[in-house]
Amino acid sequence: MNEVLETIHNRKSIRAFENKPVPYDVTETLLQAAMRAPTAGNMMLYTILKIDDQELKDKLAVSCDNQSFIARAPLLLVFLADYQRWYDYFLHCGVEELCRTRNLNLRKPGVGDLMLAVNDTLIAAQTTVIAAEALGLGSCYIGDILEKYEYHRDLFHLPKYVLPVTMLCIGYPREDAAERVKSRRFDEKYIVQRNRYYRLEGLELDMMFKESTRSKLVDGAVNAGQDFYLRKFASEFSVEMTRSVQAMMESWSQ
Amino acid sequence: MNEVLETIHNRKSIRAFENKPVPYDVTETLLQAAMRAPTAGNMMLYTILKIDDQELKDKLAVSCDNQSFIARAPLLLVFLADYQRWYDYFLHCGVEELCRTRNLNLRKPGVGDLMLAVNDTLIAAQTTVIAAEALGLGSCYIGDILEKYEYHRDLFHLPKYVLPVTMLCIGYPREDAAERVKSRRFDEKYIVQRNRYYRLEGLELDMMFKESTRSKLVDGAVNAGQDFYLRKFASEFSVEMTRSVQAMMESWSQ
Repeated sequence: MNEVLETIHNRKSIRAFENKPVPYDVTETLLQAAMRAPTAGNMMLYTILKIDDQELKDKLAVSCDNQSFIARAPLLLVFLADYQRWYDYFLHCGVEELCRTRNLNLRKPGVGDLMLAVNDTLIAAQTTVIAAEALGLGSCYIGDILEKYEYHRDLFHLPKYVLPVTMLCIGYPREDAAERVKSRRFDEKYIVQRNRYYRLEGLELDMMFKESTRSKLVDGAVNAGQDFYLRKFASEFSVEMTRSVQAMMESWSQ
Repeated sequence: MNEVLETIHNRKSIRAFENKPVPYDVTETLLQAAMRAPTAGNMMLYTILKIDDQELKDKLAVSCDNQSFIARAPLLLVFLADYQRWYDYFLHCGVEELCRTRNLNLRKPGVGDLMLAVNDTLIAAQTTVIAAEALGLGSCYIGDILEKYEYHRDLFHLPKYVLPVTMLCIGYPREDAAERVKSRRFDEKYIVQRNRYYRLEGLELDMMFKESTRSKLVDGAVNAGQDFYLRKFASEFSVEMTRSVQAMMESWSQ
């Protein structure tokens, strides 16, 4: 198999790292790769925050659902959707005056621009993940950076048009983590469809999820769906994520 | 340079394709790679729609900002954020009854779940782009699939918790397209920051954007920022994208 495909197939999330820093030049190679990621209209609507302050790492380990391995990750990268730079540049270039003289309403970044920036940001993040794998580094996405918006905003000093989208923990994999079995994926027939969306029903759903049943269900659940619903979907962090993302949207659109 | 990094660095958007289909097994290799992309809690919160109906391609070329090359792309993949499958599974597993007996409110997918699904979706899309490049295929993201939500929803028969996030045109690059010079990126010092966000000011913004000035500015603009603002940021498709994404959010949260 082609080396690139092999890298994609071999990659799995790594949460346990060797106690060994990621050298400066390796980090640079990684960031240079990230910045080659496709970007809408070549706008690069993202900022990558490199976190090397241990106090900040410790805080993020707590705020991102109390996952202590975050504090021990040699390299933490926070991926921010960023329309602030472009909007500040527009203002700096006098678009307010331009709009006034041409009798146009000044347009501000809307949720469409936000979504485009989120696209750019994640495309850069996944390019980083694949580059990291190629450099022998393990990585893990932390979606919990979407929670506690106000706290993270203040922690990173984010202005209005900059929002946290995802975070990556990166480092050399500890041997036991590297040997962990890769997680299964759902069968392609449920994920890939042709021309129009097909909504799965009863038996098909049972078939799709049949491998997902844990040997011990959470208290009160009688099947895998109820188990997952109680443990994850209705959990505090899911509820908080929606509150937080709602707050982001409102702040952006104010 | 390592083959993976080389692939990332060589990739550029391709909009002109040879008149040659992508063979079935190559498409399968691509989709298998996509499905190995990291996914939050192994939920795979996306569906990939393979578009091979020419009538549908023609419609998408029109609806996505009248870009005729879309209709000529040998392979079109629409990436949909998908919480419908999981939510239907929860209902199929009797969570409504479970909530009733335990006196809990039934939780529905919120905007946090939507954002997590958007994460999953784009991570899979960018994995596809890198795999395509490795297979000698060119690709181009079409962000315009975020526009005209109601039209695309009806075209693909999308239920409430399935939203279009991005689209990829894929095919073998036409020679002239393959030889096109890669677009520049902004300097790393503007994109990568340390520990906290630093908001650029006047002169720094001028420096950052100094290479972006086109030789001929749009009518009425006196500098690069005004030019970009009028041509892109305040254009009809930008305004439509925000209206459409707003409609998606409202439909999801209803």
